[in-house]
Amino acid sequence: MIKPQTLKGFRDFLPNEARKRQYVINTLKSVFELYGFEPLETPALEYEEILTGKYGEEGDKLMYRFEDNGKRRVALRYDQTVPLSRVVAQYQNELPFPFKRYQIQPVWRAENTQKGRFREFLQCDADIVGTDSPLADAEVIALAITSLQKLGFTGFTAFVNDRTIFEGVSKDAIVAIDKLSKIGEKGVLDELLNKKNVVRNLEEANELFKKIKNQPITIYLQEIFSNLERFGITKEFYSYSSIIARGLDYYTSTIFEIEIDGYTAGSVCGGGRYDNLIGMFAGRQIPAVGFAFGFDRLLEAMEQLKLFPADLQTAKVLVTIFNADLKEQSLQVSSRLRSNNINTELYLDENAKMEKQLKYANQKGIPYVIVIGPEEAARNTVQLKNMETREQKELPLEEVITLLK
Amino acid sequence: MIKPQTLKGFRDFLPNEARKRQYVINTLKSVFELYGFEPLETPALEYEEILTGKYGEEGDKLMYRFEDNGKRRVALRYDQTVPLSRVVAQYQNELPFPFKRYQIQPVWRAENTQKGRFREFLQCDADIVGTDSPLADAEVIALAITSLQKLGFTGFTAFVNDRTIFEGVSKDAIVAIDKLSKIGEKGVLDELLNKKNVVRNLEEANELFKKIKNQPITIYLQEIFSNLERFGITKEFYSYSSIIARGLDYYTSTIFEIEIDGYTAGSVCGGGRYDNLIGMFAGRQIPAVGFAFGFDRLLEAMEQLKLFPADLQTAKVLVTIFNADLKEQSLQVSSRLRSNNINTELYLDENAKMEKQLKYANQKGIPYVIVIGPEEAARNTVQLKNMETREQKELPLEEVITLLK
Repeated sequence: MIKPQTLKGFRDFLPNEARKRQYVINTLKSVFELYGFEPLETPALEYEEILTGKYGEEGDKLMYRFEDNGKRRVALRYDQTVPLSRVVAQYQNELPFPFKRYQIQPVWRAENTQKGRFREFLQCDADIVGTDSPLADAEVIALAITSLQKLGFTGFTAFVNDRTIFEGVSKDAIVAIDKLSKIGEKGVLDELLNKKNVVRNLEEANELFKKIKNQPITIYLQEIFSNLERFGITKEFYSYSSIIARGLDYYTSTIFEIEIDGYTAGSVCGGGRYDNLIGMFAGRQIPAVGFAFGFDRLLEAMEQLKLFPADLQTAKVLVTIFNADLKEQSLQVSSRLRSNNINTELYLDENAKMEKQLKYANQKGIPYVIVIGPEEAARNTVQLKNMETREQKELPLEEVITLLK
Repeated sequence: MIKPQTLKGFRDFLPNEARKRQYVINTLKSVFELYGFEPLETPALEYEEILTGKYGEEGDKLMYRFEDNGKRRVALRYDQTVPLSRVVAQYQNELPFPFKRYQIQPVWRAENTQKGRFREFLQCDADIVGTDSPLADAEVIALAITSLQKLGFTGFTAFVNDRTIFEGVSKDAIVAIDKLSKIGEKGVLDELLNKKNVVRNLEEANELFKKIKNQPITIYLQEIFSNLERFGITKEFYSYSSIIARGLDYYTSTIFEIEIDGYTAGSVCGGGRYDNLIGMFAGRQIPAVGFAFGFDRLLEAMEQLKLFPADLQTAKVLVTIFNADLKEQSLQVSSRLRSNNINTELYLDENAKMEKQLKYANQKGIPYVIVIGPEEAARNTVQLKNMETREQKELPLEEVITLLK
């Protein structure tokens, strides 16, 4: 007997979870499209040479790679930026530029699952390719902020920085300072001191830290902030931070991270401008700016802050079957409700006891149940039971339809 | 230089195509949920032993299988029925039964691409697990019919049969007769004659063919048809056919296939009852009935019959930027339109010539363009250009919002 199990780091999403995921995906899509971003899908499998060498040594190690039946070396999608670069090069003569695309697909990484990481997870990217205007930087930040608002978040901040302020600062120092929110000022100074090639003593560490902390905002960033104002984005949702650096060093100027008040697992969104990456397959520089939402973190934060709508269940009403003789009425009522666009489940066993049918509605969290017994059938009415309040009312179907709509 | 290309049998979906796919997916989901079916997602990768041996020798050969970094033998999702069986066994104590789930995810098969087949394609399944009531059979057929209606199809037939009528008939004969619509009556008789173990001469072939062709409808199927009537499904959309058999022999009674009038590439939907399959991991018999839409065929048929809505483009309006000095107005107008839930694209280059901006709208098929020059800015109006009729009107923004909503 084969044991029914999933691979470590891979997840099934049963209806309750799958519905929440769909809700977030649909909300994000609708905001992305409100801003004129268009959907793109790329294959799960690519030629290995397309993907390897783009994510550093670590990336190549974590990538799912194998030889297919035709002896081709192939690899599973590892992120959505490298496939975007390939698409931009492959279809450069037919795509309109600036190319504003969003992409919401799973990626696969053989991560260490003990760190609470998954090996299959969804990425939600939105990027603008082909313009170096700071209008584009402002638009993606505005888009990220609006997306979170539409999901119901009210307290959050997009910390925005310009990576050019780090010019001349060693990478080790940037990595240390980037950890401020996690390890505090003392932690940063300790880490700076540990890197012998960066500073020689505490005084120098302090000086370096202060220099970066007090770095004034760049003109480029000021222009982006003005654009955000013109877009009508309230100032409480973004602020300048000379401290954030973002780990990946492919960003060329603007970088940002969004932190949600009260959610401590890390930023839910990160992005910036990366003008030297997208052109890798096209063989020329193509400017780009964009961001990715951490989908699992978004869901966790929404759960924690109770932002999911109460009425996410699929069916609004369960139509029970009183007995085999009264089946016809129940089928007709189901059909009528569905024609009126009311999500309706019919209990699919004409011989089940009413108790079992009610229990089923309860288990699934269906808010209303309809019962049609012989008396209701004779009077051409139905019993409508509110499963939460336990209230029950005899009503003509028309009234039920109005009530449930 | 690495050549930007996709693997044979794998496809990119650029915005125009991706939007059509989303439209079909969203329509199907909404109908599935109208009938109370709930979403399920399973991982792309499973333990190889979960998948192999379930699809016959051919299936094992076409399956993408490899060893992961942890030396586990893994395989890519090949269909959605075997994962469903695993889920039913793995969560049997927490899932409500009957379990009505839909699943819309890609599967991977190393098919011969010369036959016009893809190696990555979407499957759309809806199944009811855990009831042997013919109500369930009727419900899935009703669901398939309603789905096609919601997509805009008006001429199609669900051919329904009961596999039990083939009891005692050899598999070879069933396979031959199943081809009637493709190869005609003469073709079927020839094929029957070719199978020496089935019939000895033309007379016997004729007799066997007629016997099956004239097989009366079973009581079980009659009950399903009565249920379809009670569900209010018009008779023009389904009919009894003793000829259809469906290739896979896991079906146990009801089988059906839907053919669209004027679309000759094959049936767009197939399904039936399969009571001996879902229990494979649970170690007991669990009845099930369901269907799968052929997603690529559905799209092809919709394209052919011109069923896609004309207004599928993402952005409804492009807001141009007259010049750098008038940027502020354009940003504010974009923001106002978006607050009113109008999908709006802002042209992201304040230095681009107006001609280039209009060309961009044209290339993307955006139906309206807004221009705010110095006079409009002074009068607090905008120029609204209809890109199809080339008509242009100066209007206050409020009127544009009303018009575009």
